[in-house]
Amino acid sequence: MCPPGCLHSICAQATRRGVLRSGFALGAAMALPSASLAAPVPAAEHRFSTVHDLTHTLFEGFPTFSGERWFTVEKPVTWDKDKVNLHRWTLMEHTGTHMDAPLHFSQDGLSVDLIPIADLVVPLAVIDIRERAAANPDTSLTPDDIARWEARYGRLPDGCCVAMNSGWHALLDEPRFTGRDADGRNHTPGFHIEAADFLLRERDVKGIAVDTLSLDTGLASSGAFPVHYAWLGSGRWGVEAIAGLDDLPASGAMLVVAGPKVRGGTGGPSRVLALV
Amino acid sequence: MCPPGCLHSICAQATRRGVLRSGFALGAAMALPSASLAAPVPAAEHRFSTVHDLTHTLFEGFPTFSGERWFTVEKPVTWDKDKVNLHRWTLMEHTGTHMDAPLHFSQDGLSVDLIPIADLVVPLAVIDIRERAAANPDTSLTPDDIARWEARYGRLPDGCCVAMNSGWHALLDEPRFTGRDADGRNHTPGFHIEAADFLLRERDVKGIAVDTLSLDTGLASSGAFPVHYAWLGSGRWGVEAIAGLDDLPASGAMLVVAGPKVRGGTGGPSRVLALV
Repeated sequence: MCPPGCLHSICAQATRRGVLRSGFALGAAMALPSASLAAPVPAAEHRFSTVHDLTHTLFEGFPTFSGERWFTVEKPVTWDKDKVNLHRWTLMEHTGTHMDAPLHFSQDGLSVDLIPIADLVVPLAVIDIRERAAANPDTSLTPDDIARWEARYGRLPDGCCVAMNSGWHALLDEPRFTGRDADGRNHTPGFHIEAADFLLRERDVKGIAVDTLSLDTGLASSGAFPVHYAWLGSGRWGVEAIAGLDDLPASGAMLVVAGPKVRGGTGGPSRVLALV
Repeated sequence: MCPPGCLHSICAQATRRGVLRSGFALGAAMALPSASLAAPVPAAEHRFSTVHDLTHTLFEGFPTFSGERWFTVEKPVTWDKDKVNLHRWTLMEHTGTHMDAPLHFSQDGLSVDLIPIADLVVPLAVIDIRERAAANPDTSLTPDDIARWEARYGRLPDGCCVAMNSGWHALLDEPRFTGRDADGRNHTPGFHIEAADFLLRERDVKGIAVDTLSLDTGLASSGAFPVHYAWLGSGRWGVEAIAGLDDLPASGAMLVVAGPKVRGGTGGPSRVLALV
């Protein structure tokens, strides 16, 4: 039902190319201290008056990176039979709108339950590359995009999440969402490794989010996963398949990444909100 | 792995006793309009400077109402083999710190994905019955407890969640958490049906939360589930196995119930936070 065979082969490929090792050397060189469980909660006061849901509804057949079915539901207890409704789910962790914990692409990074809660309620910067992505699905969010955002809205706030709005969140029902071509390669926007590097080295960023199925571009995901290894390997988190970005301000929202608190989990379906 | 046999028998028992029918008549009589999907987001401005995690870590063997194992993990993709970690979960929806959607105890109530997001970020009133519960695990939160809370903190805020702090959230590792006796009955605190009735009729309350495994007392749960049928049947939600209540103010926090957005779900493991 959920055999992740294609991930196996992708990883095998990547290992053969030696990309994993270089990805990891990069991650290690840039490693900051892992998020501490005793991290102080930000003292700044935040205000909001509206709540936005940035979560796609999860269903059997929700598109997946691999094309396999990663979420299924059984209904062993039903109203007609039992006067109670109660379902059983079987899922691979990385389906729907979901988190990537550091452990997903590292040997011993933080599992999803150990990420400090204060690191999951953070200022949100939304970088809009919709126009370019509509013309070229293989485009990526680059350092130039970050520079343009900062020129307009100021320096990225400390401890923030940087979200890519490629417009893909509106394409869930279309083949473009996975962007798979006849050769099995995906054509979807993502973070360029140079943008991830810049955020790791030059800014204080807790997480990155994409409205596609991969932090990397689809093409980079079809092999090396450079952003996954560098970003998650540094102890930071990611969110994939985020929704609802069009309705948010580019700056000023607080993001709530309500990930699953599962012991040892590498991520999982999450409820993602914005407070504005 | 997850057969909910005991729930079947409980429901069968309850049906024999005709309790379900009377429970439903009660629910129907008190029914308010179901939460509307177009519910306006509250316009009031909320402020916070700290985030509290009210979620227990979920693990294989997390105590369940039935005593069965309702959460299991497999690890088909591992770092040693694949240079990626990715797990598969199988779970019954109502395990860990979790939501009850109206559909859980009603024929056609709202599923968890359809509850308006504005109804899941709400003022939190914490009612402390720890002292009484320590002396008598069969005690319940009553209308008198609500009256005492209101005498001290003012009328329950419109659109709030009322949470019972029985101290049970601190007993997760002890047999008292499920409170199962030799006859298979559970001895745990919960809402008294008269308290639920009062909140339904006399106050504007979106949800109720308990730090035990059931909105009802353990004894009421071993048969009739009167609070489940009345409360969820009215279109409102519940949270079970909430954690961390001791550190919260009785009044003034905002609760974030980040439930799973699963199509047709009757509830499920949730990340529950408080903004203070």
